[in-house]
Amino acid sequence: MAVRQATICKGCWGQMRMPVPLRGIASAPFRAFGIRPSRMNPNTCTLCELMFEKVMKARQISIEATVLFADLRGYTALSQAHPSAAVTALLDAFYDECAEAIWEHDGLLNKTMGDAIMAIFNFPIRQDDHAAQAVRAARAIQQRCAARREALAEAFGAEGATICVGVGIASGTVSFGEFGRSHQDLTAIGTVVNIASRAQSAAAAREILVTQAVYDAAPSELEEGSARDYRLKGFDAPVRLWAA
Amino acid sequence: MAVRQATICKGCWGQMRMPVPLRGIASAPFRAFGIRPSRMNPNTCTLCELMFEKVMKARQISIEATVLFADLRGYTALSQAHPSAAVTALLDAFYDECAEAIWEHDGLLNKTMGDAIMAIFNFPIRQDDHAAQAVRAARAIQQRCAARREALAEAFGAEGATICVGVGIASGTVSFGEFGRSHQDLTAIGTVVNIASRAQSAAAAREILVTQAVYDAAPSELEEGSARDYRLKGFDAPVRLWAA
Repeated sequence: MAVRQATICKGCWGQMRMPVPLRGIASAPFRAFGIRPSRMNPNTCTLCELMFEKVMKARQISIEATVLFADLRGYTALSQAHPSAAVTALLDAFYDECAEAIWEHDGLLNKTMGDAIMAIFNFPIRQDDHAAQAVRAARAIQQRCAARREALAEAFGAEGATICVGVGIASGTVSFGEFGRSHQDLTAIGTVVNIASRAQSAAAAREILVTQAVYDAAPSELEEGSARDYRLKGFDAPVRLWAA
Repeated sequence: MAVRQATICKGCWGQMRMPVPLRGIASAPFRAFGIRPSRMNPNTCTLCELMFEKVMKARQISIEATVLFADLRGYTALSQAHPSAAVTALLDAFYDECAEAIWEHDGLLNKTMGDAIMAIFNFPIRQDDHAAQAVRAARAIQQRCAARREALAEAFGAEGATICVGVGIASGTVSFGEFGRSHQDLTAIGTVVNIASRAQSAAAAREILVTQAVYDAAPSELEEGSARDYRLKGFDAPVRLWAA
């Protein structure tokens, strides 16, 4: 299923009530100024990526958001044992399935880095239920990757069937904006981001681990979940995580 | 020291002998078509980032390259204990010092992800001595971050003095190009990238760990180095790394 493509930028509309055309004839003058669909979410525009500097006159803002990390288990071992064309096909599939799942739920695919991706929910597209949307996106990632497993088994043999994804999700206040003055990079930072990343590392294959804040914000998504305390790298106190 | 800015794109010149103006009046018509200095290296252009699709008609190519990972030690703990403005200033400083050090040595600052960065040497700017350049960039990163330590101590108190960087470097054949069909992302993948990342994790604070291939390609940079076998995650056999 392809994501339905928005005609006007959902980010600019949600943040500023400004209709920025993304597609069709009305988008032509905008494209001439470099305003086009964002790579991070094709239903938002490149203006959203620059909103801080150009519109808000601030380099970073504090926002409530949900952050999701997902990674491919066993990628390092797999990529040593197989030709690069097969590994490329695997990463293409992983990135694409993650992108579709995240965009379906109005998230921003902020980073891809080797076998991992990072997504942010609630900016630039506002969502009151950003925690629930992130959990739904995580389930969609797991389902989409499971559906690809047969094709992967063809490319990678028996190992293909073992290719799995682990997901970590955290909610709370993050600092979002441009970091680095010479190499500007749009991303979110803060303890919430660090916990989401560590939760992903702690997740077993095919597992989704979420923080208490995510559970509290989206209890109906996590009815059958169970909680356990985890020791996460860089955190002194144990952190309670729910398996979704 | 600021990096001297090139007038024509060093990448397009090196790869295709094509002079693409980056700055000054001659760059205006290029800018109208969206060709401007790249964020990954301001001495190369955005055409270099798209070279695969537009010029080479291939999504990925196999190239010899050197890959460098650097990360800030203790970032997770630090970012919990300090206000976000201080953490932002720390990341700004880290990204900027890394960027300058990498660009001075004609590398590409390919990724920033939280407390870590990834750089690639030998594309789009060709360098016969890419391994040596990466080692020099790593030393520059260590020196630049050490020089900032006093200012960091002011922002973070005693902990500021303990802020350190670990670096890992590997050389060899990587697959370089666009990954993901819906969310296109320019990066390098392969065992060399994985080893560089693992070497960075294995490096102690202020240490630079390089692979045998880097040592063989740049022995004069590593005269006083010592080797040791490391067990790296995802690798069955121990991997020999040199402390630069």
